[in-house]
Amino acid sequence: MTADQIWRLLSAIRERRPLVHNITNFVVMNNSANALLALGASPAMIHACDEVEDFVAISQALVINIGTLYSEQIAACKLAAIKAKAVGVPWILDPVGAGATPYRRAAASALARLAPSVIRGNGSEILTLAEQTQSGQGKGVDSSHGSETALDAARQLATDTEAAVAITGAVDYVTDGRRVAAIENGHPLMTRVTGLGCSATAVIGAFLAVERDAFAATVAALAVFGVAGEIAAARSPGPGSLQVALLDALYLLDEATLAARLRATIR
Amino acid sequence: MTADQIWRLLSAIRERRPLVHNITNFVVMNNSANALLALGASPAMIHACDEVEDFVAISQALVINIGTLYSEQIAACKLAAIKAKAVGVPWILDPVGAGATPYRRAAASALARLAPSVIRGNGSEILTLAEQTQSGQGKGVDSSHGSETALDAARQLATDTEAAVAITGAVDYVTDGRRVAAIENGHPLMTRVTGLGCSATAVIGAFLAVERDAFAATVAALAVFGVAGEIAAARSPGPGSLQVALLDALYLLDEATLAARLRATIR
Amino acid sequence: MTADQIWRLLSAIRERRPLVHNITNFVVMNNSANALLALGASPAMIHACDEVEDFVAISQALVINIGTLYSEQIAACKLAAIKAKAVGVPWILDPVGAGATPYRRAAASALARLAPSVIRGNGSEILTLAEQTQSGQGKGVDSSHGSETALDAARQLATDTEAAVAITGAVDYVTDGRRVAAIENGHPLMTRVTGLGCSATAVIGAFLAVERDAFAATVAALAVFGVAGEIAAARSPGPGSLQVALLDALYLLDEATLAARLRATIR
Repeated sequence: MTADQIWRLLSAIRERRPLVHNITNFVVMNNSANALLALGASPAMIHACDEVEDFVAISQALVINIGTLYSEQIAACKLAAIKAKAVGVPWILDPVGAGATPYRRAAASALARLAPSVIRGNGSEILTLAEQTQSGQGKGVDSSHGSETALDAARQLATDTEAAVAITGAVDYVTDGRRVAAIENGHPLMTRVTGLGCSATAVIGAFLAVERDAFAATVAALAVFGVAGEIAAARSPGPGSLQVALLDALYLLDEATLAARLRATIR
Repeated sequence: MTADQIWRLLSAIRERRPLVHNITNFVVMNNSANALLALGASPAMIHACDEVEDFVAISQALVINIGTLYSEQIAACKLAAIKAKAVGVPWILDPVGAGATPYRRAAASALARLAPSVIRGNGSEILTLAEQTQSGQGKGVDSSHGSETALDAARQLATDTEAAVAITGAVDYVTDGRRVAAIENGHPLMTRVTGLGCSATAVIGAFLAVERDAFAATVAALAVFGVAGEIAAARSPGPGSLQVALLDALYLLDEATLAARLRATIR
Repeated sequence: MTADQIWRLLSAIRERRPLVHNITNFVVMNNSANALLALGASPAMIHACDEVEDFVAISQALVINIGTLYSEQIAACKLAAIKAKAVGVPWILDPVGAGATPYRRAAASALARLAPSVIRGNGSEILTLAEQTQSGQGKGVDSSHGSETALDAARQLATDTEAAVAITGAVDYVTDGRRVAAIENGHPLMTRVTGLGCSATAVIGAFLAVERDAFAATVAALAVFGVAGEIAAARSPGPGSLQVALLDALYLLDEATLAARLRATIR
C-alpha cells in the first residue's frame, strides 16, 4: 500500500467527516473521541440498549471495545453488531483483555462470531480469540505475547471470521487470511499511555467508513496512527506529553510527512 | 453586559467556590470537572438514584447532560431535577444529540419540562427540542445546523420552558424569549476537542450558582469560556494542546484580558 | 524512611510491572491508568461483578475508589475486597466524598470493614469514616477539613481497621495507629486538577504490590507522587499543563531528584 493510497483515504475522512459510533470502555472514551475528531471524523459514544440499533443505522462505522465490560454492555454490543450487519455498516471489534477472565473470553468470542469487518488486539488477545493456545490467559490488558508470535493465530482467526485481523505491537501486522501487511511505524513510549490501542481501533473504524476493503482500511489506519505516534514521541519527554502531541499530530499530518515516514510492507 | 459585570461574577465563583453537582456523560466527566476546578468552582460527579436527591440539596447548582444516556441515568436526572426545583437549586440541561434517536429525543423533552434554569445545545439539538422541524434528526452529537438558524426555535423554547436558552456555535446566542445576546468569542479549533460544549454547560452551571438571572449567568459564562478558548487556540498547534491550554486559560484569566477580548452584544 | 528505601520500591515497580486491578470512578479512570503506566505498573480497570473475583486473583494489588458510586459497583467492590483478602492480594480504599450522603457513608463504612491494607482520603473523608465528628458531612468531594485536624481520627481508624491510614492535604499524614509519617511534598496547584487524590491512591496500590508493609508502601508512594507533583507544578502555568507534566514527571523521576526533594519524616 502506497503513501498516496493512504493519503487519499485520510483526505476522504477529513472531507466527509463520517459518523463513527463507538460502544467503548470508560477509560478511553475521551481519548477515542478526541483521536477521531483530530483525524477529521465525527465520533459519538452511544451505549444504551434502547438506542444503539437506531444509532448504528445512521452511522458510517461502528467500533466495539470490551474494555470495561458489564452485562448490559454485552447486550448493547450484540444488538449493535447484529444491526450493523443488517444495514451494511462495517464494524470493528477490540477484544480488550480477552484472555483475562472466563467472562471476558466468552464475551469476546461471542462478538467475534457476529461478523466484524476487523478485529484488532495485542498478541495475547488475538491468541486467546483464535484459541491457539491453552495458556492464552493474558496478563491483564497488556500483552505478554509479541505480535509476531500471534501471526499464525491471526491468519486462522481471519479465515474463520472473514474479518481482517490486526495484531498491534512493536510491529503491527494485518492479515485477511491471505495477505499479510507489516507496519513498522509507532514508538515504544506509546505503550505508556493508556488506551492508545483503543484509539488505534477507533481510527480503523473511521477508515472503514471510507474504504470497504477492510484489509486496506486497517493498514492505512495503523500507518497513519503509527506515523502520528512517532512524530508525537519525538517531541515528548514522557507519556503525558505524548498523549497531547499525538492528537496534534493526527490533526496536522500532511502528505509529505506521511510519505517520508511510512514503513508498511505487504506480502 | 459589560466586562466589569462578567468579571464580578467570575470573581464571585473564585471566592465562594460553589459546589456544582454534575450528572453528566462518561466522555466528558474528567474535562467538565477540570473546567470547573480551573474556573474556581468545586465540582462533584454524582449519578446514583440512591443519592442524587441528597446531593443536589447540598449543592449550589446542578448540571444535567444526557451524552451517554442509559435508563437508570434518566431516572437519576429526573429525581435530581425535581429535587433541585423543590429546594431552589438552579439547574442547566445539555440535551446532547437530542435528535439522534427517539429514546434520546424523549429523554431530552421530558427533562426540558422539569423547569431547568438554562438549556444549552447546538443548533440541531435546540431545533429538535423546540420541535421546530420535522427533519430535526441531528447528525450524531455534532451540529448540522448553524446557531443562527435555530434562534427562532430557541426563542420559542425559552418562552415555553421559562428557561434561558443558549445555542452555541460559530457565534453563541442566548435568549430568554425577549432578550437576545450574541457572543462572538471562541475559535473553530474548539470543535475538534470532544466535549467542549459540555464543558461550557458545566461552566454555565457555576455561574448560575452565583447569579440567579439565568440569562445574565449564561451570557457571562459563554463569554468567559469563549475568551479562554481563543486564548488557548492562539497558542495551540492542534486540538490536543488546545484542551490543555484551555484549562490553563480559564485558571489564569484576568480582568484586563477579558475586557480586551469580550465581544458580546445584547439586543 | 530514606530516599534510598523509597527508590528501591519504585525500581521494583518499574522492573516487575505489577498488575494493579482498579475498581474506580468514571471521572479518573483515564488519569489513574496513566499515572500507573507512567510509574511503571500495569493497570487494569475491571468492575463487573461477573469477573472482579477472577481478575483480582491474578492481580498484585487492588484499588477501590467509590467516586461515582452505583449499586452494582458497591457489590463489585465488596466481592473484590473479600476475594482479595482470601487470596492475599493487598488492597486500598479511597472513600471519595464519604460524608456527602448517607448512601456514600454506608458504602464507605461497609468497605472499610473488609480488611483494606490502606485507606486514603482527605481530612473530611477520614473524619467521616472514623465517626469522630457529628458534623462530618463533607463539602462534596473536596475537603473542608485540614489534614492535621483529622490525624487523631486517622489513628483511631487505623487501630480499628488494622489498615494504614493516609490523610492527604497541604501536608500528607500516614499512620498505622502507632507510627505517624508526615510528607511535605506536593504543590497547592494539584488541588485544581480533578482526581489527583485518586491517582495518589492508585499509586499507593502499585507500591503495595511490591512492599507488604502497608505503612512503608504508603509513605513511599505519597513521597514519589508529591515530588512528581511539585516538579510538574514548577513548569506549569495552570492546571491543564500540570496534569500533563505530572505524568511526565512520574515517568522521568530519578534517584537524585527524589533524594534532593524528599521531605518526609516519621515519628
